[in-house]
Amino acid sequence: MNNNKKKDLERMFSPREVAVVGATEKEGKIGNIIARNLLGLGYEGKIFFVNPKHKTLFKKRSYKSLTEIDDKIDLAIIAVPAKFVNQIVDEAKNKVKNFVVISAGFAEMNLEGKKREEELSTMAEKYQLNILGPNCLGFINPKIKLNASFASDLPKQGGISLISQSGALMVAMMDKARQESLKFSQIISVGNKMQLDEVALLKYLESDQDTKVIAIYLEGIKNGKELVKTAKKINKPIIILKAGRSEKTLQAISSHTGSLAGSDEIASIAFAKAGILRVQSLEEFFNTIKFISNYTDEKDNIRDFKNSVIITNAGGPGVLATDVFAETRLQLVDLSSETKDTLQQFLPMEASVENPVDLLGDADESRYEQALKILSNEKELDTIFCLLTAQDQTPTEKIAQVLVNFSNENDKRVIPIFIGAEKINKAVNILEKNNLPNFSFPKMAIKAVDRIYNWQEKRKELQLDEASVSEKNVGQVEVIRKSQQIIKNAIKENRKALLFAEATEVMKNYNIPTVDFVNFVDKKLWNNLSTAKLKFPVVLKIDSDKILHKTDRQGLILNIDNKKELRQAVKKMWTNFPGEKLLAQSMIVSQSELILGLKRDPIFGATIVFGLGGIYTEVFKMVDFMLLPLTRKEIKRNILQSKINFLFQKTRGKIIADVDEMTDLIFNFSRLAEDLQQVKEIDINPLLINKEGKFLAVDIKIMI
Amino acid sequence: MNNNKKKDLERMFSPREVAVVGATEKEGKIGNIIARNLLGLGYEGKIFFVNPKHKTLFKKRSYKSLTEIDDKIDLAIIAVPAKFVNQIVDEAKNKVKNFVVISAGFAEMNLEGKKREEELSTMAEKYQLNILGPNCLGFINPKIKLNASFASDLPKQGGISLISQSGALMVAMMDKARQESLKFSQIISVGNKMQLDEVALLKYLESDQDTKVIAIYLEGIKNGKELVKTAKKINKPIIILKAGRSEKTLQAISSHTGSLAGSDEIASIAFAKAGILRVQSLEEFFNTIKFISNYTDEKDNIRDFKNSVIITNAGGPGVLATDVFAETRLQLVDLSSETKDTLQQFLPMEASVENPVDLLGDADESRYEQALKILSNEKELDTIFCLLTAQDQTPTEKIAQVLVNFSNENDKRVIPIFIGAEKINKAVNILEKNNLPNFSFPKMAIKAVDRIYNWQEKRKELQLDEASVSEKNVGQVEVIRKSQQIIKNAIKENRKALLFAEATEVMKNYNIPTVDFVNFVDKKLWNNLSTAKLKFPVVLKIDSDKILHKTDRQGLILNIDNKKELRQAVKKMWTNFPGEKLLAQSMIVSQSELILGLKRDPIFGATIVFGLGGIYTEVFKMVDFMLLPLTRKEIKRNILQSKINFLFQKTRGKIIADVDEMTDLIFNFSRLAEDLQQVKEIDINPLLINKEGKFLAVDIKIMI
Repeated sequence: MNNNKKKDLERMFSPREVAVVGATEKEGKIGNIIARNLLGLGYEGKIFFVNPKHKTLFKKRSYKSLTEIDDKIDLAIIAVPAKFVNQIVDEAKNKVKNFVVISAGFAEMNLEGKKREEELSTMAEKYQLNILGPNCLGFINPKIKLNASFASDLPKQGGISLISQSGALMVAMMDKARQESLKFSQIISVGNKMQLDEVALLKYLESDQDTKVIAIYLEGIKNGKELVKTAKKINKPIIILKAGRSEKTLQAISSHTGSLAGSDEIASIAFAKAGILRVQSLEEFFNTIKFISNYTDEKDNIRDFKNSVIITNAGGPGVLATDVFAETRLQLVDLSSETKDTLQQFLPMEASVENPVDLLGDADESRYEQALKILSNEKELDTIFCLLTAQDQTPTEKIAQVLVNFSNENDKRVIPIFIGAEKINKAVNILEKNNLPNFSFPKMAIKAVDRIYNWQEKRKELQLDEASVSEKNVGQVEVIRKSQQIIKNAIKENRKALLFAEATEVMKNYNIPTVDFVNFVDKKLWNNLSTAKLKFPVVLKIDSDKILHKTDRQGLILNIDNKKELRQAVKKMWTNFPGEKLLAQSMIVSQSELILGLKRDPIFGATIVFGLGGIYTEVFKMVDFMLLPLTRKEIKRNILQSKINFLFQKTRGKIIADVDEMTDLIFNFSRLAEDLQQVKEIDINPLLINKEGKFLAVDIKIMI
Repeated sequence: MNNNKKKDLERMFSPREVAVVGATEKEGKIGNIIARNLLGLGYEGKIFFVNPKHKTLFKKRSYKSLTEIDDKIDLAIIAVPAKFVNQIVDEAKNKVKNFVVISAGFAEMNLEGKKREEELSTMAEKYQLNILGPNCLGFINPKIKLNASFASDLPKQGGISLISQSGALMVAMMDKARQESLKFSQIISVGNKMQLDEVALLKYLESDQDTKVIAIYLEGIKNGKELVKTAKKINKPIIILKAGRSEKTLQAISSHTGSLAGSDEIASIAFAKAGILRVQSLEEFFNTIKFISNYTDEKDNIRDFKNSVIITNAGGPGVLATDVFAETRLQLVDLSSETKDTLQQFLPMEASVENPVDLLGDADESRYEQALKILSNEKELDTIFCLLTAQDQTPTEKIAQVLVNFSNENDKRVIPIFIGAEKINKAVNILEKNNLPNFSFPKMAIKAVDRIYNWQEKRKELQLDEASVSEKNVGQVEVIRKSQQIIKNAIKENRKALLFAEATEVMKNYNIPTVDFVNFVDKKLWNNLSTAKLKFPVVLKIDSDKILHKTDRQGLILNIDNKKELRQAVKKMWTNFPGEKLLAQSMIVSQSELILGLKRDPIFGATIVFGLGGIYTEVFKMVDFMLLPLTRKEIKRNILQSKINFLFQKTRGKIIADVDEMTDLIFNFSRLAEDLQQVKEIDINPLLINKEGKFLAVDIKIMI
């Protein structure tokens, strides 16, 4: 996006002049709500109304068209029936560059609408217009008191930018936001996302100085790769709630890999790769935004959230809070003996000075204050969870003020968890006014902090990745050419998959270790066998692009002990599968059966699956995913954080396999995936680890 | 508990006369708060104050002692320093039978306090007294407007009985309860649970007609077996929040079984077995109580919750709600074409008549009403989740009233999910006043309903179990005698574990299939070997009660192919482990390695562990647990619901093992566990499934 366009988006979302096409005084009409939102909430820019049916509207001149207005127009909001929209934009395209199209009746409706939207999109591109929507609610910029939407209300001004693909959700969130004092820089309804989608808006919000946190509600993603690339570079927290997790994939599934990597799981991997904080429910979305928007200050650069202490005026909730830590990566620290001694000195005898620190039910503000002061000397401590249940005598407001003061003067983070309702309401108000959001339950708080801690750790990893040298494929021309030739031949023969010999060849080209085998093509059986280095026992299998699940179809005979048995087995196979090619491999004693696969996700692109293989791959689901592009460093980290990391750690005195070897293997596999775009899916299953800890691709399916 | 005692608890919790020992007019004192709670909240029974320092208190006579009072006394509340408590009880023991001991300074404090509590406990037993506490807040019975505690406030009267081991939590919950209009029959703080613990109170609440739902917050459980037995019989929902999930077990762990079954996991199994609904956080506790207390009416006997439909006025939240269903056992039903047609007729064209049904953003009360009416004709439908986001024009209160009316006149369940704050507050009030609790977020609602659905299913299973014939061990005398003799011998020799030969013998006694083996005791090596039916290859291992993790300690040699190799192996072992017994077994080709174990939990008793075995048992954690006693029916159901249920289903065309055979095996194992109480732990690992699908106990450790 060039600078020129960036400037346009600034003019769009902070316009000096706004025109409403379709403004009306008729109540209940959308054009009426928008006009009143512009007039009534304090916006200080120029406002123009366009409606050829009227001479004046709201005591202002009503224009026949946008072009009739003499002034410059930064933004036009269009709220007329869909069939008139394109014409209006077309007429004004040289005068106005930024449009919000409120009108429904485009691609979301029917074929006619879809055509209409395509036409509008072409116009936008040709004349370099910015168009938000169509079929959207508009947007709200609280800083300039501009409500360019038909949602009523003007939220408080602050650092949260909310992008929502659902107008209804946006309105509900604004309602809840007011109650919980959330503050916004932009609230943008994207509607059909014809042109201004999450990627374009992220690019704009990256440089918007008022935006500290970006929250996005998504129902679909158009360009996943671009989203990952863009988000990765943005140094502001991005929180995404994506609906449609349970969406069923309609594609036919022809490989393990295909069935293992659901499209929503891949979205999760992609978000993690991009350093996006993904949440799984509306409640999490809300809590996380609320929390993170209050904690994006200088403290972030000093402290993370990991080392935690709980102080409480009630033992029970303290234990409940402790329980939650087991589900997180946060750490309840052991307090130093010095701290414990000092706490002991001023606390009553029955108090606990272990973590959680129990200040007892009659704790007042001075006891909280003193405890916080002492804890501030624990250097390694990051976060203090302050639990409070309001007993009848508890001075809740004073304690709230103690927390606020401490938080302002100290670099430790303070997380209040005041449990109750009426008895704590005033205290909670004090906390929230001072940017210390309260959580009503321990789990909610600790999980929210953990989510942010994990996200910060992920961001740190990404920064390290950026710093590492990127690995290029050089001198690979010949490898690519040879491999592509194999694929071309297969395509010429109308095959959907490579034969085993071909697949093995491709693997060899990319230095992925394979197993010796012998092919039987009809009569040539014994000739081939004599030249082979097969060691009995062997396995005999069908080598066909048609029969993919060999075990299921009985195209596989195991434990063949000698030549005689082999001859019988070959005969049997050819009776059951006349005309098919066969192949025999020595059976390998393995320590572990893995799977390594490739899938091309329509939204996020090449995805690598790796984990435990064998016939129970789907039962155990001990698999993980990586998205391309990948560096060796990223691969190694992913392996060590994966479900099969135990293979690389000492168990019962020995290590099964070497993580660097697996890293190389997957790196080579990822180059293959990048080089050979004609390959649709790959299943290496099993990828054996033999007795010596070496990896061997035993069965290889390459779908083209 | 005999009838007499039951009556006493009724007198305790619904007393006609209450005396307060330690009453005072001095503000801030506990004796003052209790006295004012009795006087000021409307209790109509007789009130007596005991305090020898005063002649009158609150314009009433102040007695020197309980015995000085002429009237009968149903309940005495004691709020004096701990050191005076026992004497007061002792003096009054013939006059008063029910006490609430508020005073702290007992077992929770120090050794002296512990002694004091033991004394009090002995007195209680000897004189058949009921004592709540010590170290508790007291209790509240809203029906008779009795607050016999030092928490202020009198909650609304209703069907929830809350038992809390934390006073602070009880107060906080009452505060929240008022806000969310929860209604109570009893609120009981149990303190140290010296005598009246959760089991005793459950027995009382079972017959308390006002109690519809029992909610318990626990920090520790004294008698787990009794709790399971009692809860199982109670036909009211019991919800437990138990703190201390992450409690570390301090016992030394000498077996896989020991390390797999954490004490908290066993508590979960026990709760499930008892038909108790366990929740994992304070928020879940609260939501579940709120919800279930509003849904325990006649509808429960007609409908379960499973078949669900979502109706919504916003697509986004509808999709978010749909996503949650994937994490539950609830079902989003396909609507009948008749229903869809009828919906289509009255809804605007853009509305969706699939499930979730989208009524569109401008839906008013009549659109909700009409949709509900049409859906009521879907016979199989149980639950209607009614989502609403408040758009500016949405008549939220009218829609709330529509939901209330429909719910009153119809047997379908209606679950409102109104999302927002200010815009929906009045509507939510209407809903809650009419016993339709609102959930602020879809996930919260659907998860709560799912929790209750699962609990209902569990209760149904338990009822079926009750109906099934119980299985007795008859004619087992000889088996028990023989097995116990083996154990006695080992104990005599100061061994901590049985030798393999002994363990095998015990297994054989209980019809658990084992593997042939040969023992080598020093020189007798070849004599033994000649008599053996060992088939090579064999495995040689140490048979010792001292070396339990053979693989780790290299006390195991695999793949010995002939006599010569065996001789060498024996030599090597005896060099490394001089004087130890050895044993050789033929190696068995297996389809699967399982683990079957026994552990005796200090709280819940004998626990059986079963699942995937082998060296990665702890890595995969594909294990499940069962608590004794067990019927065959229960075992089979547990196996089929377990993580290894795939072994008994067709995979790639074949079934690995027979579930009835495994059921018999575990049933026999459970009889062994019941008969031989001297056995502390058992590990059968691996329990192999051989090529023919037969189970074989290959390695057996029996700890005594």
